[in-house]
Amino acid sequence: MRGGGSDGKVEAEPKSVIRPTDDASLKLARRLVREARHAALSVLEPETGHPFASRVLTGTDVDGVPVILASALSTHTKALLADSRSALLFGEPGRGDPLAWPRITVLCDAERIEHDSESDDRIRSRFLRRHPKAKLYASFLDFAFFRLVPKSASLNGGFGRAYIISGDDLIIASPLNDDIGARELYLIGELEKLGCNLANSLAEHYFKEKTGNWYISGLDADGIDIARKEKLHRLELVNRATDLNGLIAEYSNVLNWFPKN
Amino acid sequence: MRGGGSDGKVEAEPKSVIRPTDDASLKLARRLVREARHAALSVLEPETGHPFASRVLTGTDVDGVPVILASALSTHTKALLADSRSALLFGEPGRGDPLAWPRITVLCDAERIEHDSESDDRIRSRFLRRHPKAKLYASFLDFAFFRLVPKSASLNGGFGRAYIISGDDLIIASPLNDDIGARELYLIGELEKLGCNLANSLAEHYFKEKTGNWYISGLDADGIDIARKEKLHRLELVNRATDLNGLIAEYSNVLNWFPKN
Repeated sequence: MRGGGSDGKVEAEPKSVIRPTDDASLKLARRLVREARHAALSVLEPETGHPFASRVLTGTDVDGVPVILASALSTHTKALLADSRSALLFGEPGRGDPLAWPRITVLCDAERIEHDSESDDRIRSRFLRRHPKAKLYASFLDFAFFRLVPKSASLNGGFGRAYIISGDDLIIASPLNDDIGARELYLIGELEKLGCNLANSLAEHYFKEKTGNWYISGLDADGIDIARKEKLHRLELVNRATDLNGLIAEYSNVLNWFPKN
Repeated sequence: MRGGGSDGKVEAEPKSVIRPTDDASLKLARRLVREARHAALSVLEPETGHPFASRVLTGTDVDGVPVILASALSTHTKALLADSRSALLFGEPGRGDPLAWPRITVLCDAERIEHDSESDDRIRSRFLRRHPKAKLYASFLDFAFFRLVPKSASLNGGFGRAYIISGDDLIIASPLNDDIGARELYLIGELEKLGCNLANSLAEHYFKEKTGNWYISGLDADGIDIARKEKLHRLELVNRATDLNGLIAEYSNVLNWFPKN
């Protein structure tokens, strides 16, 4: 069944090396995390410490930290409260070989968000714009948000394309975060004033989307998320915004890339 | 943002109960495991014990036990050799809400398969019929198969539809296994004699597949797998086969369900 070699085996695969992290791999890593609507969450089963995996809806906080909404009845909530160490596998395969599609494993420490805290309001608002159907149960007292703070990550861009990404490279450490978090809806409104049907234009221009009804679901110092039903796209700025006027100006420039109507 | 209740909160969700396992949930659990082409694998990082997750191609052994093919260079191989406890999350979401789609978490103990053993030959043959492209690297000495023997499983059939499935319910404990494993290709050939383009007919009749070129990729005492490119379907017998003649006869009866040409 196997060919080659005098002992009937082919030679061993060359030792795969971790490639040096470059702009393209960082960009891919961030997109996989920030564009995801769901992920596989790996935790330790309470008491036994046995590895466990479940599917979770994901969003991001304004600093890029992945967030999940979890029921107190779920195994993963019990697990995260007992041991905050966890991992998220992002990146869904499309057609063809599932291993040819990029994915990233992010090792995280989970932080439970207290109900009605400032963080809860901010995260809830962002999450429910991304996942409107989660409104059905997000207000149940049993449910709480968790921030899954990245510590390190393994990016697999496809066969033999492995990279180590630092946790810091997935976190948006911007002095603008507090301000954006406090008035994200206002800022999104300012963006929408920049062009009519801005989200539709971005969806069509950058992602070849033909349908309308796109909206801006999230904004942070690294870029914006646009959403429509079960689809989500991420637009990353070339450079992280350094002030709020600059942020709006950056997006204003983006609009200049579009042909005039 | 949240409505209802005098404190601005709606009442807590009713405690979700684990539903009693019935034929439908068992059938769903088996289909999710046996029809999968890939899964999220959860393991413990060696040395740290931190949970880790990765994407793996999956197949099944003749007794229904999930199998993976893994490189010695991968984190999950190192992890499984250090601690065999692992979990597989099966069941890919389709369109719409990812949490509305069924999935199953199977807690497993991993067993590495020795190269050139009888088990290796059997598992390799089954796996490569399911994943022909894996031939590119399956013969590398660095790669080995693992059986991930189910110990227990959590089935989530969609919101509020939770079931506990025993490991034994996912294993085909049939006296026919050795015989099927030793001459699976012959038996598949016998099946194919039962009707011309049998796999195509099954694909069309049971799964509304319009394209041809389907083939039988696997056979066991509980049913057969049919494959075409990146697609895989599982056909489960109503009752587990009890002898090999009966097995062929069962499939022969299945064929009677088709209209005559």
